Amino acid sequence: MNREKVQIFDTTLRDGEQVPGCKLDTKQKLVIAERLDGMGVDVIEAGFPVSSPGDFLSVSEISKIVKNATVCGLTRAVKNDIDVAAAALKHAKRPRIHTGIGTSQSHIIHKLNTTPEDIIARAVFAVAHAKTYVEDVEFYAEDAGRTDNAFLARVCEEVIKAGATVLNIPDTTGYCLPHEYGEKIKYLKENVKGIENVTISCHCHNDLGMATANSIAGAMNGARQIECTINGIGERAGNTALEEVVMIFKQHPYLNLYTDIDAKQLNEMSRLVSDSMGMMVQPNKAIVGSNAFAHSSGIHQDGVIKNRETYEIMDPLEVGVNESSIILTARSGRAALAYRAKKVGYELTKVQLDLVYVEFLKYADIKKEVMDDDIHQIIEASNLQDDLVRN
Amino acid sequence: MNREKVQIFDTTLRDGEQVPGCKLDTKQKLVIAERLDGMGVDVIEAGFPVSSPGDFLSVSEISKIVKNATVCGLTRAVKNDIDVAAAALKHAKRPRIHTGIGTSQSHIIHKLNTTPEDIIARAVFAVAHAKTYVEDVEFYAEDAGRTDNAFLARVCEEVIKAGATVLNIPDTTGYCLPHEYGEKIKYLKENVKGIENVTISCHCHNDLGMATANSIAGAMNGARQIECTINGIGERAGNTALEEVVMIFKQHPYLNLYTDIDAKQLNEMSRLVSDSMGMMVQPNKAIVGSNAFAHSSGIHQDGVIKNRETYEIMDPLEVGVNESSIILTARSGRAALAYRAKKVGYELTKVQLDLVYVEFLKYADIKKEVMDDDIHQIIEASNLQDDLVRN
Repeated sequence: MNREKVQIFDTTLRDGEQVPGCKLDTKQKLVIAERLDGMGVDVIEAGFPVSSPGDFLSVSEISKIVKNATVCGLTRAVKNDIDVAAAALKHAKRPRIHTGIGTSQSHIIHKLNTTPEDIIARAVFAVAHAKTYVEDVEFYAEDAGRTDNAFLARVCEEVIKAGATVLNIPDTTGYCLPHEYGEKIKYLKENVKGIENVTISCHCHNDLGMATANSIAGAMNGARQIECTINGIGERAGNTALEEVVMIFKQHPYLNLYTDIDAKQLNEMSRLVSDSMGMMVQPNKAIVGSNAFAHSSGIHQDGVIKNRETYEIMDPLEVGVNESSIILTARSGRAALAYRAKKVGYELTKVQLDLVYVEFLKYADIKKEVMDDDIHQIIEASNLQDDLVRN
Repeated sequence: MNREKVQIFDTTLRDGEQVPGCKLDTKQKLVIAERLDGMGVDVIEAGFPVSSPGDFLSVSEISKIVKNATVCGLTRAVKNDIDVAAAALKHAKRPRIHTGIGTSQSHIIHKLNTTPEDIIARAVFAVAHAKTYVEDVEFYAEDAGRTDNAFLARVCEEVIKAGATVLNIPDTTGYCLPHEYGEKIKYLKENVKGIENVTISCHCHNDLGMATANSIAGAMNGARQIECTINGIGERAGNTALEEVVMIFKQHPYLNLYTDIDAKQLNEMSRLVSDSMGMMVQPNKAIVGSNAFAHSSGIHQDGVIKNRETYEIMDPLEVGVNESSIILTARSGRAALAYRAKKVGYELTKVQLDLVYVEFLKYADIKKEVMDDDIHQIIEASNLQDDLVRN
């Protein structure tokens, strides 16, 4: 089986920026867009042009500087939104308009107060209208995660006829479990006429912590674009994390799927986005958290010192992190203590190590983390000076 | 089909505490243990008694105060570890010893430098020895995620014969995808003699962001205990997040699985653990992040104001959060502005709203978030005073 590419559609600057406390100015957005382009992202969703003059300007300026990626602007299924997005994308080398409408019962009835037939008519109109401006039109069926599959298939078939090139199947509320989302994509693959000519896209939210798992299930069932953000930021509990998707395909080559992202830039990119947006990344965030490659328990440290792969599936260098950390705490064992003592200059014999370890635990039970300086003090307090080898 | 209970095994105080910068003193651990017991956790893993005198003390003190939950202590498959754990658990109403050994090739060869037969012998010895102290013995097959299924099944069968009551199948390195982990549990259910008499437990790590999805896949394939932590903290990228597991079962009743956790305590519990450990939770963390129920985009705000369920699958009150936030930013629409203006005292007509909205966008493009005070200024700047209705 040939390996197939999954396109990475980054929406850090649109869904990611749509977050309380997260607003970026145009200059910051340009820096991020340029870096996303440089790391191999296929599509950059640059903003929602009709939403404000500032966002229009950002999309327009990003369109001018992006060299390789498609630049995409979001719209509702509304004529004016589409006209404004087309204007903002005027200078893009590869422009895409992303338009769509809610398709679930909840959206049709409560939000849009209309009928299923009207939804299809508006969807078709929006795609056809966008198509008068650009060749590449992505359609989103908002709340597809909670939309009846038969109706969703009808909508998809009609917008394909109207010229859509990409079908985005968003789990807008983060409701689905992976098997459900995967089955939805499979259903569409099997029941929508013309679907073989378009790209199916996953846009999953993280309200139940399932965004990445759902996107992977989507790709395993035929989707070939994943919409994601750096650090998984986005509305509410956020979106699929770009860094997780990239590393899952790398770690599971038997899936025969790959992305074009240069993983070595992931760590730096994570920091750039976190710093620019003032949105911190928790230490236990997969791939890019500060503890993602840190080991503090004795059992784990001992294993990693013997062979990195005992407790690490990824080499930290693969994602641009310099090395695994061996952190000394009360949960650390003799192996980690000996390893660190050696690093700061002491070769301890087995007998010495036993003595120093007792002293070390007294320290570590009080202090959260034992640092290099503490090691000198601990060894001094252990009364080993006579026959200590210092290297 | 009858609904079946999935036991919640909380390891915040053991795997969670095994995190750089995370150390808690005994007093803090007692506060957390008491609250875990009160919110309905079935098993509290209180520590790794042999690791340090401080940890021994914590397990011992926790054993004295916990009223309902089983209290569990971790050990390696080593006689002294087990003796020490038994001593620490002496006062527990429902004590459990959690012992085990690595079963993957990587662990057997690189870490333990031994043979598969020796692993089985050590595993059986450890379980049998623990059984001399307590009735309830949980066995972990470390790195089960990367262990050959046939060998894993042999190990499981032997430790069941030796008296294990719970079989923990950890994805120690966070390597598996949900379908792989689910299939592993299914394989064991179908191939291990006596497995119907024990509880299968999931212990998944989050290195690829899959911890919760894997645990759910495990439960869907027959596991009836999930090991997790508050906020998903733990070694490296952390463990399965307790709050996500609880809410997934609540949101997907057709799975016919439930937990006994009082979800209303989730938000407060998250804060307690985060504050005591000094481990912050990112704003986009599912269920317990500060933005988990915040809406800032215009499209979403409009939907939520019309009907909460348009963009929210959970009522924030269910997890102890007082209400959804409608945050005003440059991505907000007229509906949200009108809603907030009304809250601070202005009933705007449609024409007035259009005028105020233009002024609002100028403000919001500069300011990250528009607060109540700003609304007064914006309305003043819009020159509507003459016919303004203030309620």
